[in-house]
This record gives sequence, structure tokens and C-alpha cells, in this order.
Amino acid sequence: MANKIPVAVLGATGAVGQRFIQLLQNHPVFEITALTASDRSEGKRYVDAVHWVIEGDVPASVRDMVLLPTQASITGTRADVTLAFSALPNDVAQSAEPAFAQAGVLVFSNASFYRMAKDVPLVIPEVNSTHLQLIRQQRHMRGWCGGIICNTNCTVSGPAMSLRPLYDQFGIKRVFAVSMQAQSGAGYPGVSSLDITDNVLPFIKGEEDKMEAEARKLLGVLHEDSITDAPIALSAHCNRVAVIDGHIVTMSVELASPAKPEDVVRVFSDYRCPEVGDLPMAPEQPIVVRCEADRPQPRRDRMTGKGMSTVVGRVRAEPLFGDCGVKFITLAHNTIRGAAGGSILNAEVVWKWGLI
Amino acid sequence: MANKIPVAVLGATGAVGQRFIQLLQNHPVFEITALTASDRSEGKRYVDAVHWVIEGDVPASVRDMVLLPTQASITGTRADVTLAFSALPNDVAQSAEPAFAQAGVLVFSNASFYRMAKDVPLVIPEVNSTHLQLIRQQRHMRGWCGGIICNTNCTVSGPAMSLRPLYDQFGIKRVFAVSMQAQSGAGYPGVSSLDITDNVLPFIKGEEDKMEAEARKLLGVLHEDSITDAPIALSAHCNRVAVIDGHIVTMSVELASPAKPEDVVRVFSDYRCPEVGDLPMAPEQPIVVRCEADRPQPRRDRMTGKGMSTVVGRVRAEPLFGDCGVKFITLAHNTIRGAAGGSILNAEVVWKWGLI
Amino acid sequence: MANKIPVAVLGATGAVGQRFIQLLQNHPVFEITALTASDRSEGKRYVDAVHWVIEGDVPASVRDMVLLPTQASITGTRADVTLAFSALPNDVAQSAEPAFAQAGVLVFSNASFYRMAKDVPLVIPEVNSTHLQLIRQQRHMRGWCGGIICNTNCTVSGPAMSLRPLYDQFGIKRVFAVSMQAQSGAGYPGVSSLDITDNVLPFIKGEEDKMEAEARKLLGVLHEDSITDAPIALSAHCNRVAVIDGHIVTMSVELASPAKPEDVVRVFSDYRCPEVGDLPMAPEQPIVVRCEADRPQPRRDRMTGKGMSTVVGRVRAEPLFGDCGVKFITLAHNTIRGAAGGSILNAEVVWKWGLI
Amino acid sequence: MANKIPVAVLGATGAVGQRFIQLLQNHPVFEITALTASDRSEGKRYVDAVHWVIEGDVPASVRDMVLLPTQASITGTRADVTLAFSALPNDVAQSAEPAFAQAGVLVFSNASFYRMAKDVPLVIPEVNSTHLQLIRQQRHMRGWCGGIICNTNCTVSGPAMSLRPLYDQFGIKRVFAVSMQAQSGAGYPGVSSLDITDNVLPFIKGEEDKMEAEARKLLGVLHEDSITDAPIALSAHCNRVAVIDGHIVTMSVELASPAKPEDVVRVFSDYRCPEVGDLPMAPEQPIVVRCEADRPQPRRDRMTGKGMSTVVGRVRAEPLFGDCGVKFITLAHNTIRGAAGGSILNAEVVWKWGLI
Repeated sequence: MANKIPVAVLGATGAVGQRFIQLLQNHPVFEITALTASDRSEGKRYVDAVHWVIEGDVPASVRDMVLLPTQASITGTRADVTLAFSALPNDVAQSAEPAFAQAGVLVFSNASFYRMAKDVPLVIPEVNSTHLQLIRQQRHMRGWCGGIICNTNCTVSGPAMSLRPLYDQFGIKRVFAVSMQAQSGAGYPGVSSLDITDNVLPFIKGEEDKMEAEARKLLGVLHEDSITDAPIALSAHCNRVAVIDGHIVTMSVELASPAKPEDVVRVFSDYRCPEVGDLPMAPEQPIVVRCEADRPQPRRDRMTGKGMSTVVGRVRAEPLFGDCGVKFITLAHNTIRGAAGGSILNAEVVWKWGLI
Repeated sequence: MANKIPVAVLGATGAVGQRFIQLLQNHPVFEITALTASDRSEGKRYVDAVHWVIEGDVPASVRDMVLLPTQASITGTRADVTLAFSALPNDVAQSAEPAFAQAGVLVFSNASFYRMAKDVPLVIPEVNSTHLQLIRQQRHMRGWCGGIICNTNCTVSGPAMSLRPLYDQFGIKRVFAVSMQAQSGAGYPGVSSLDITDNVLPFIKGEEDKMEAEARKLLGVLHEDSITDAPIALSAHCNRVAVIDGHIVTMSVELASPAKPEDVVRVFSDYRCPEVGDLPMAPEQPIVVRCEADRPQPRRDRMTGKGMSTVVGRVRAEPLFGDCGVKFITLAHNTIRGAAGGSILNAEVVWKWGLI
Repeated sequence: MANKIPVAVLGATGAVGQRFIQLLQNHPVFEITALTASDRSEGKRYVDAVHWVIEGDVPASVRDMVLLPTQASITGTRADVTLAFSALPNDVAQSAEPAFAQAGVLVFSNASFYRMAKDVPLVIPEVNSTHLQLIRQQRHMRGWCGGIICNTNCTVSGPAMSLRPLYDQFGIKRVFAVSMQAQSGAGYPGVSSLDITDNVLPFIKGEEDKMEAEARKLLGVLHEDSITDAPIALSAHCNRVAVIDGHIVTMSVELASPAKPEDVVRVFSDYRCPEVGDLPMAPEQPIVVRCEADRPQPRRDRMTGKGMSTVVGRVRAEPLFGDCGVKFITLAHNTIRGAAGGSILNAEVVWKWGLI
Repeated sequence: MANKIPVAVLGATGAVGQRFIQLLQNHPVFEITALTASDRSEGKRYVDAVHWVIEGDVPASVRDMVLLPTQASITGTRADVTLAFSALPNDVAQSAEPAFAQAGVLVFSNASFYRMAKDVPLVIPEVNSTHLQLIRQQRHMRGWCGGIICNTNCTVSGPAMSLRPLYDQFGIKRVFAVSMQAQSGAGYPGVSSLDITDNVLPFIKGEEDKMEAEARKLLGVLHEDSITDAPIALSAHCNRVAVIDGHIVTMSVELASPAKPEDVVRVFSDYRCPEVGDLPMAPEQPIVVRCEADRPQPRRDRMTGKGMSTVVGRVRAEPLFGDCGVKFITLAHNTIRGAAGGSILNAEVVWKWGLI
């Protein structure tokens, strides 16, 4: 289809790269025209280089696509794209993403390296789409035609989505968060089966810091050329459990003003994001509240809203914070909402706003 | 051995009953002389009635023992015991345990029914052994020769053990606790494999209330004839994860006075309980602190101290509580320390003190 | 839609009942108008009585449907149906299914009780659709207006599908089959998590006998009023493994005439069943052959053909049977192809043939 | 203890290396005096270099031992040993093991590289201890003072042990074997949790060929300077399942002469190996027969005989082989009997026979 925007997937053979490819099949706006991988896969057909680990098969449209090296020099000559989805690991992203941005490509990144940079938008559209405006400042300061727009850490996506309407409605002071994270959050091969079978890993390197810092930036306010972090205190314990996809997080929240559980449920259920709601990747409802005592559960609820909704459950009073306390759990699909799907939705907003 | 104290195991065919039998093998003080089960198993050989689900085989010493009905009328005539370990389910325990107590048997119970009764000791020896004195009041008030001494909920055992020295040293105001509990906590058959494979169950009926109430009673003070609850606020989220044995709990604690993580580590490591320490079931160290970033883990650490130690790890500052905040995780074996082993240790203290 | 055929689901609250409801959503021919359950659920709304265990939610169309008792007396008066899908357990099916058949209902059963009865069709449409003709004989002999048509044991469905074209093309003498079966094959709650975590259960009661007997009947020939079993010898080892859905079976087959692996692959790939192929529930291809060394795998391939295809892989020579030996593996979704989906496809054939 | 034989563990940081260290603690004959690892770990303390993945902690006796490079040049100077247990990966073993052998070290290898070499003993002591004599021929031919003695592939150990007494008593023609293998068989990190959760991997590279070839060599006869393979035909399907330790194998065996299941049970139960039976690592009984319908199971039975017994169950007739058919299952602990423990037992025999 001649009218679609041609896009590249950087780091296309990894687990997140595969998810990008899966989610971009038959996308109405974007069309994959280039796939990159590490040098040793360059020149191979995608189907020969990939060890496909997600459900289904390698889509026919990319099977025979020849892998390019992850080098900005391919831009224009070998890859005629101005938009790229990056599933690069952090160490590669650090140098490759700015190079592509310099070369005129708008990179939607899943790496953590640039997330906290002052001029880099870190965005979940339903939480802080206005931050996307920061891209103008970034281009101005760095002299780039392209740019870097970051996706959040997969673990913070559910909590941030749930905190947005609470913050707007009641204000938030403190949040105690404990995650039970899926194996796919560590990529592939990632977590050894000998570590997670009949076990919990009560530590994920760097994860707690990321959650705490990214939540503040996500809920922050864009002032002219920079983001002022939200004055929220969040403390996290991060754990890995024997689940394939779907991060669950328990939340004990101290609001800035009193609220009853039923008020909180209503605020969650009513939350809508009009400027995002009609985009292809957007879920019908950003936040879906479950009323059963034992839901959400990762396996049974992670695909809610095609994996793009945050599912909230067990909303009840948090007695330790008096009238201002509420506790609940959130579930978000870590490789869809928390990774590839989130990046695509970011790109859709940018496209809708004419920033591409 | 003629000098051992003959004991019964009530509800001997269930998962906790099996654990009692396993742990009482070659016990230097107690000897199993009677096993009870539901009426439909009465008269069967133990090995024929039991579906043995824990590691190893049915011990030879009980294989051919004939099951008695769980009725107090067996006492004296068919079962010459004055001490019983009860693995009865809650609904059976409600009527059966008082009947045995009335008949002169001191019952060490794992059921929850009598835990919060004013005159019933709820005891983890290293936490509140003095509460065992309450048995005199119970006998007096109820006119029993025997009595009921309760074990705690399996989930609270690790947190309570870790809070004891902190409470004594620094005082405690608030505790945010999130559990990741093992499948065996629900008994056998318990949790369906279709519910827990590739999943987390974010709700366990009644568990959060038990944790909160029992923690206060455990850390409470015995005044004459009753316990005054500790003025501690604890709030819990309880979850089931795909682990066979071993409950892990994340703890964010607001102390009453400032403490640094290294102080807390020292207090944990130094904690000893002299009057308990030399008993057969007691672990060498009540609290074992791990210094690795990713320990304790259920499968790798649950057998620490033969399953009787509480293993603590990841001790660090809890920024949300300023100078008074500390966070860490605890691990305790739920069917040993949190059930059968805990009851046996209670009985050993009572025996040592001459209360039997 | 007035023109659809109204159907009942018997035993609608169990795991297979749920699968029937899920697969019948928006079915072009059948429409659920009645749901039955055990007496204690009678009168409840479906959503209140069911513990929904499969992916997604209770479909809106049945949420508020009031459960009827599983009694043939409901027919005509409270349930105006002449076709029913039965997910009844074996002991209930034994008396209930004939009662419904007597009352004029054609019952598509998933129970094992009547499978081996001489006048009961045991059918996988792509394997032996002609056996459905036996229903005339059944009606004649038993004086029924309705009837009973059986689905196979879930484990034999993959092997039988794969053996059909081999039998037609080369003949078959002996088959060594070893199953690795999913947890859902035992229903819900079914397999305890304490039995299957970090474990294999090398025995499933009655399963090996069923596989051996049903395979012979399925591949048998309809002669006038009865089926002559196929003269095939099959020997099975049946095992339960930690998988949610999808039974995998290793097959070592002695053909009656020589064949090379590539011939066998071709016979599998070319297999079509024209009279079934265009029905709503039929997969595009009955047998899908995978060429990768490590496929099919239950989690990644069970939904092939919407869960209705049998996936075959690792086709290679079986040296122990010389030129006539071939070995391979089969995978079939046990609760779709091997249960609810298989029954619906049977009903579709009967509908197409005008037997309803 | 001055009288113990000093030994080295080659490749001491991997999963099998850890098992060697664990099993050699307090060994009455051998004492670890040297540990080797890859070059990048050279000079580190063992506890700093190892990621300990098996139960328990790093034993105190090796915690502070400084790692040596895996180079034969260490022999004599930095490592005064004449016996080494090798847990080296295949590619390293290929050159390192002969170098150590040349330098005078008798290497007990777990790698597969030299297993099928004509002058290399491939030994399970209870199966073919006489083959150890082949070491003289090896030394003679290769001019070595040391030598290489191989342990079998972990999967074949249970089947070979069970076949030994059947072969001696009845003769064996054909064996159909299907394995369900544990994750630890692939080492650490080995199998990705994303590959095995809710899944079966129906292929393990090279495994089927190894089983078939090694079984024939193990049951073969030593004639002067070489082994004549046993004329047995074995065909295998090898699968990986979600189990930590313990390989289970289903066996359908065609004997050379008729036997009833009860005869086979008796032959298994009566099997003893006097010249091995009193060695430290030897299990009380080489083959333990379980009579329950659903045993052995990996988690519940893998530690039988301290992990050194082969557990057999479900012994019954194999109808496809008429009077000569028997089917059953075997379970063996793959990292104890099938790896480190097996090597240590080999060394104990060699020590007992004075070949060291």
C-alpha cells in the first residue's frame, strides 16, 4: 500500500523485535520495510536468522526480508525510512539510536538509556501525551531532524496508568509498590528455567530505581523546555515469578485527599483519553476494573484490550493511610503495553499530531 | 523407648498431618502412638489410607498403624495420650479440639478457629514464648485438664519472627507486607494446576486479615490473664505463586526510632532465643541474614535451619519512612516453620517448662 | 437469528462445558438456548454458578441464562432443543444421555461411557465420518428419536488423525505411542499443583486402554449395522506433564508396506477431507506438518487451525521396523479438537447430511 | 586428612562442577585440592566466581579455594593430583582431557567427546565395570600415564541399568524408549524459562543418537583390547519437560525369551552388584522397584538411594511383543547418577581395584 509510512524495526530478531513485527502486521498506518540485526545476521533472510519465540509463526510479509546491519548509514540508501521502532539492547541503543536520530529517523525506543535525559520524552500516551512536544526541544538542542522518544520500563506502565487519574483527582503523596514480573520481561533466553521453576527471584537489577524515577517523570508537567517531576514518593520491591507474560503490581497509595474505594473504582472506570482513544493500537478502555475477588490474574487477563489495557482489581481501603489510603493491584502485558505496543501507540500519536 | 511421651496426630492423612509424621520420626521426646482421620478412614492401615504427597516415603514406624476416628472418646481407652498435634481442618477443629482438651489432652493446633480467642496462646517460641503461660488461665476458665495452644497462620510466621527484634530494639509503627505464598499453604489437593501454571493468584481468602490480627497478638504483651495486642499497624496484600514450599514476604517497615540498614542486619543476625535454642526442633539461628542481592529464594533457601529458620534478605533503607524506614524480605518454610515444625517446637517448650 | 438450530449444553459449568460455550459464540448454525448443570446450581444465573477457568470472560449471550437441571424432563417444556452437546462427567452421562436420547435429543457426548457400545458412532469426522450412519441403527434398535454420538478420548485424537492417511496409503501393523498430556485433560480442578509442579505423573487411569481400543474402532469399517475394528495393534504409555493445553504423543509406527519419511510427510500434507473441509469448525488443513527440528510444541502450536488441526513433526525413519518403520510426533489441542470442538464438528457433519 | 587421594574438579563453576563439589564433601577416599575454570575466572576465589545453582550453599571447604586455569601445565606444579573429575563442556574437553591424561592424570569425564572411542571405557559400574580394564589398553596405545574414563549420557543411565539384568536373564532384541528429561540436563543457564513454561520441547540435539549408541556399548562385551557392542536395537524419542532434576524414560522391550511381568520385577529387585555395593557412592540397591500405579515420579523419587538408584515402575506386559514383551518406566537423577555421582562411583571402583 503506497500510502503507508515505511518503518524499520531495529533489533528485529529479539523477543521485543518479534513483538513489533507481530503487532505491525496489517497496521493501517505503518508498514515494515526494513529490519536490522547484529552484524553477524546481516544479509540473512529474517526467517533464517530468527528464533521465533512468541505465539504463532513468522508473518509471511517479513519471512524473506533480508536483514540489514544496525547502522545509521543504511538510512536513505538501503532503508528509506524516517521512523524506526527500536528493540535494541541498552548497550547498542546508546550509540545507535542517536546516530539514527541524527540521520533523520524518529526512533521509538524500548531501551532505558535515554529515558531520563532531560530532552527525551518518556511517554505512555494515556498518561502524558503532552510530553511528546518535548521532541521539538530535543531536535532544536541536538540539531537532529529525527529524534528519540522513549517507552517506559515495562513494570511501571501499569502503575503509572492507574496513578494518572488518581493524581489528577485526589493528588498522591506516597506509593508502596511490589511487583511480580513475568519471565518475558528479561528477554530471550533471559531467565533460566533452573532459576524460576518452583521459585521466586526477589531481585531484578536496576528495576526498582527505574520504577521510582520513571513514575515521577511520567506524571510530571511539561514546562516550556523541560519536565518537572511529579512530587510523588514511590518505593518498590521487584520480583520475578513463574509467569510467561504480564506484570502484576500491588499498590498501597496515600492520596493527598480522602477517597473511598468506590470513588477510586469510578475514577478508574471513567478514565478516558479522547485524543488517543481512536488510534489503531489504543485499547477501548485504558483502565479496566475487575470486581471479582481474585482478578486480575496474569494468564487470564493479560490480553484485555488486546494486551493494551491496564487491568485493575481488588480496590479497597488502605488502613495505614487513614481516609486517604487505597490499595489495589494492576496488571499490564509487559511485552505489548509495556514494550512494543506502547511504542507503536506513541508513534500513532506523533503521526496523528503531524509530528512525523 | 519407654520414656518418650506418647502423642497423637489428629488429621494424620492430610498434607500437614504427613509433615507432623515426618518431623516426629526419631524425635527424642515425643513418640507417635495414635493417628486419627475422618470416619471413612477409621480402621484402615495408615499406608492404605494416605496419599503421601511430601518427599520420601511413609515412615516404617507408622505404615501399619490403624487409624482411629477423630473423636475425644478414643482418649485413654484406644489412645493413651495427653498430647496431640492437630492438623485438622478448621471446621472439624472447632468442635474436636475442645473435646480433646476437655478429655485431658493438650492440643497443639494448626487450625485458625481458636487463634484469636482471649485465653488461647498463639505462639512462635522465639517471638512470644511467655504467652504459653496463658494455658493456666485457659484451663482455669474452661475447667480443662488439657488445653489448646495455637500455631500461627503460616504466612505471618516469617514476618513476625523478623519483627520481634526490631520491635524490641527500635519500636514499630507501620508495616506494609506483600506475600508470595507457596501452593502447599492451601493443603492437598489445594490449588489446581490450571489456576497457578503461568499465573499468579492475587487473593487468598481470609489471609490478609489473619496476618494483620495475628501479628499484633504475637507481638503483644501478657498481662496477668490476657494479651494486650501490640500497637502495630500492618497492611497486607496476599498472593499465591507457582512455588511448592516457602512463603516469601516483602516488608516495608516504619520503625519508631531511626535505624540504618546495617543496624537492622546486626539486630537480625544477633537475635537469639536462649530458652528455645537447645530444643530438638529449634534452628541453630532463628533469623539467618543473606547478603547476596537476590536471596533468599524459596527453592534454594527454604530448608535453612532444617526449615525452621526465617531467612531475611535485601535489607535496605525504606525512603518513604525517612530515617525510620527499612525494607527487606523474609522467607519461611510454610509447612515446617509455619505449620507442623512450629507446633512441635511449641510442644517442646511446654515440655521443657514442665507444663505437660 | 430465527433460523439457527437451538442447542443445549449439558454440564455447562465445567471446563469442557465452558469450552463449548466459547466455541459456539456466533456459530452460524447452532445457537445455545439452554444450559444445564447439577441440581444444586439449578435456577442460578450462569455467571453466578460458573467458575470460569478458560481465557477471556463469560460471553455476554449466556451470562444471564438461568441454569436448568440435567434432566431429560426439561426437553420440550423448558428447553426446546433437539440437539445437545454433553460435557457431563461419566457417571452422570451414563443415565442422563440415554434419557435425553429417548426424549428426542441427539446428544453429542464427551463422556467415555458409550464410546465402545456397538451401535454408538465414535467419530472424528476427518477420520471416519461414515460411521455417523450408525445412528440409524442405534435409533432403530433402541427405539430412540434422538441418539448418542460420541467424541473420542482427547489423547487418541491426534494419533488417530495421523494414522488415517497412513492406514489408507500403506496399511499399519503396530504402533508404539507415548503421550505427554496437558493438565486440562483432567478437567477442573483436576490435577493438583502439588502433584505436577517440577514433576511428571507417569500414569493416567484408564487412558492407555481407551487409546488402544478407540484407535481400532476409529479406523474400523462400517459394515451394515456395525463396525469392524481395524486390525491394528497399538500400545501406549500415558503421562501427565506440566502443560495447560495440548497433548503431545510420540509415535513409532510399523506400516504394512515400505515408506520413506518424505513419502509420509507428503501423505500427511496432502490429506484433505472434502466433505468436512468447508464446515465452520473444520480447520483449513486437518494435518499440518512442521519441518523445524523442535516443533510442534504444545504452547506454541496448539492453536494451529484454531485448535482443530493435528500438528505433526519430526517425521523420520523408525529403524526398528526396517523399511516399514516411521516415527514422528503429533500434537492436538485436547479441549478443542479433543473435546468440545470435535463434538461441534461432528454435529456440523450431521447437520450437513440432514441427519438432524 | 593426609591419607585421602587429592583430586581436581575440572570446570568447577558449572552446574555439574557444583554437583561434584557437593558430592565430594566429606568423601572418605577423595579430597578436592584443586578447582579449575575458564581463563577469565583464574585467580578468583571459588565463591566469587561461581553462581551456585544447586540446593544449599557453597561448601566451606572450597569457598576460598583459588581457581586454576584448565590447563594440563598446572599438574604437578600448581595442582598435585593424579585424579580429576571433569565437568568440562564438550569443546573444551576435546583438547583438555587428553592433555591431562598425557600429564599423568586419570580423568573421569562427563563430556561426550571420547565416549565412543574404541579404547575409552564408557562405564556405569553396576552395568559394565569390567570395561574399566580397557584403561590398560588405552594407556598402552596412547602412551599415557593417566587416562580417560567416561561417564554415560545422563539419559541412558536409567535405561541401561534396567536393561542389564534383563539382558543377562532373558536376552534383549528391541527397545522403544521415550524420555521426558529434566531441565538440568542442559546445564546452567541451559533451558530458557520461556521455552519450557507450559510447554514440552520434543527434541534435544544429538540425544537420541547418543542413547542408541551408548546403550549398545554399555551392554557390550570386553574382548581383549576392545568392546563388542551388544546386538540390541534401541530407538528413542527424547523430550524436555518442566522438571528440575530427574529423567524419566518409558521402555517397551522385546526380550529374546518369554518373561512375565512378575519375573521381570523379581529380576529387577534381586539385582545386586557385589563388587560395587560397598563403595561410598553406591546405592543400597541399584534398582528399586515401585509398585504403586503412579510411581516413580521425578520430584518424589529422584533422591532414592541418595540419587544413585534407578527407580523402576509400572512393570507390565507389552502386548505388541507377545510373550516376550515387557513395558515399564525408569527414573534416574540426571546430575547425580547420570553425571557427577556416576563419575565418582567409577573412580571408587578404579581405586578399589588398585588401578590408581
